Amino acid sequence: MERVNSYRQIVRQLLTSQVNVDSGNSESEIECQLLFDSERDRYQLLEVGWEGLKRVYNCFIHIDIKDSKIWIQRNMTETDLAQELV
Amino acid sequence: MERVNSYRQIVRQLLTSQVNVDSGNSESEIECQLLFDSERDRYQLLEVGWEGLKRVYNCFIHIDIKDSKIWIQRNMTETDLAQELV
Repeated sequence: MERVNSYRQIVRQLLTSQVNVDSGNSESEIECQLLFDSERDRYQLLEVGWEGLKRVYNCFIHIDIKDSKIWIQRNMTETDLAQELV
Repeated sequence: MERVNSYRQIVRQLLTSQVNVDSGNSESEIECQLLFDSERDRYQLLEVGWEGLKRVYNCFIHIDIKDSKIWIQRNMTETDLAQELV
């Protein structure tokens, strides 16, 4: 349980750090969002908004913690998450 | 605040009801997931898994509550969410 709590903290920190990276160029009306579902242990980073008339909706990172393991469900960033999580 | 709490309950119920609809045909290794971020008031329904060798990752519904309003950020289902939410 102690280890899983540590995983949660690491995953949250990692995703939060990626928000700052991605929202560097914020000229458009695109919001970078974090979704942390503590109950289900699901953690996500996405962008949502408008680029002119075009709707933008992209999930960059999705990480689950299940069975005391970290599952990288999705990673569309250039960051090597597995490496970062070590 | 009372109204926002009511919104939260309605949104959670709506998304939960859609899980049951979508996971009717569960022959493949695809999991239908709910992400409820109560802290940030962000609510999502997605599917993630494998269809044979092909990775599947689709966000069907994403609803935010902000400024005491319900924002339908994404809806890839055939359900008229605005109508359901009334």
